[in-house]
Amino acid sequence: MKIVLIGAGNLATQLASALTAASHQIVQIYSRTKESAQALAEKTNTSFTTDIKQITSDADIYIFSVTDSVVVNLIEQMPFNNGLWLHTAGSLPMNVFEGYCANFGVIYPFQTFSKKRNVGFRNIPFLTEANNELSMEKINDLLAKVSGSIRPLSSDKRKYMHLTGVFACNFVNHLYHISENILNKEDIPFDIILPLIEETANKVKTLSPQEAQTGPAIRMDRNIIDKHLSLLDDKNHREIYRLLSEDIFKKNKKD
Amino acid sequence: MKIVLIGAGNLATQLASALTAASHQIVQIYSRTKESAQALAEKTNTSFTTDIKQITSDADIYIFSVTDSVVVNLIEQMPFNNGLWLHTAGSLPMNVFEGYCANFGVIYPFQTFSKKRNVGFRNIPFLTEANNELSMEKINDLLAKVSGSIRPLSSDKRKYMHLTGVFACNFVNHLYHISENILNKEDIPFDIILPLIEETANKVKTLSPQEAQTGPAIRMDRNIIDKHLSLLDDKNHREIYRLLSEDIFKKNKKD
Repeated sequence: MKIVLIGAGNLATQLASALTAASHQIVQIYSRTKESAQALAEKTNTSFTTDIKQITSDADIYIFSVTDSVVVNLIEQMPFNNGLWLHTAGSLPMNVFEGYCANFGVIYPFQTFSKKRNVGFRNIPFLTEANNELSMEKINDLLAKVSGSIRPLSSDKRKYMHLTGVFACNFVNHLYHISENILNKEDIPFDIILPLIEETANKVKTLSPQEAQTGPAIRMDRNIIDKHLSLLDDKNHREIYRLLSEDIFKKNKKD
Repeated sequence: MKIVLIGAGNLATQLASALTAASHQIVQIYSRTKESAQALAEKTNTSFTTDIKQITSDADIYIFSVTDSVVVNLIEQMPFNNGLWLHTAGSLPMNVFEGYCANFGVIYPFQTFSKKRNVGFRNIPFLTEANNELSMEKINDLLAKVSGSIRPLSSDKRKYMHLTGVFACNFVNHLYHISENILNKEDIPFDIILPLIEETANKVKTLSPQEAQTGPAIRMDRNIIDKHLSLLDDKNHREIYRLLSEDIFKKNKKD
């Protein structure tokens, strides 16, 4: 299939490689900034534009892979065509396309993407949605060789997925960051904590998070909790420690 | 080496298997409750006692592997002998042994242990400390075939390790728990989030947590943050969301 990529950021870049590897053809790249557009166009051996009005009208699929807040604005400016329009955003409903094109949908890859790290797409769940059956079939064709986990999900449920992603990824990563700060101050190398991080993540593959819980908070061990609070010199970190400990104790008692 | 295990809980049980596999000999098990003592004694094919005064005096090593709050009390009751006394607690300083025995130290396995899940000891960092060189040599002999990562660390630093463990394991697991709750309510299976959990944990093996951070909080995207807060019906979870988002924004701006 012939694909136009609207966006040249990190996800768009990784998506471009994955789609090309799956024998699809990227025919054009759009980006607001020439540098990003050109860089990705060279990588995928295709043409680029920085003018949304200049996007070719004869591609099969148009993928909007830009920051959530920009998607709607770009949709509004894009000339009508007969292709399938898709976005990749967790928090945007599918109906942002309504009135602007005939066939549309969503492919939301549920993963964290960073410039400096390539991820294999095979294991990434793609949460999909389409405005009609033909669009859904096209999405399935598009992703068949890209991901091993394609899951239809409504806009209403998708926003909850995005929310859980913040808890299980962004917030989790911040707790790693806090741990790193504490270790740095004590001149202890961060790598000492990696086996614990790995096992904590692996545990919930076979146990529920509730079964997997350990540590002082679950038994409200005031002796250790107070010791720990006294070791934290950052007010916010003390507040986070207190709040999470209370919630652990409460939720494991009640459930 | 001949070992007496004081404690028959989850860590003691897993330690017993690892030590036996490393050709050490468990000669006696102590536990306050007969059932646990007997169960572990049968497993390791050895004798047991529920009376701390009846512990044999001719073993090489005595490992106190019980809840932190109980360790001191047991040390006080245990008859003097010439063996090496060790505890496995993160938050207890080594000097709890002072005055009760001649040779002592700490072997703190930095990992999370649950009854229903066996972990391989080879990758678990053991944080060690001893009151003299000979004791440290014995500890190294004891653990040589058990763990591939033996790291001497003072009591003062060890308590910070324990603290980071709470952040990077207990609190992280609770964020998994919150995610599971949200997904359950929406009838979305928990396994859909496992690839994200895995990649988040793997990312910090090659990127620093700061480099790895993504999501709405880092750019203080009020639009998405407010949407997410409105989706959370648990007051505590809203507070956790707010506090962690603020801290992510603050810490990534400053650093």
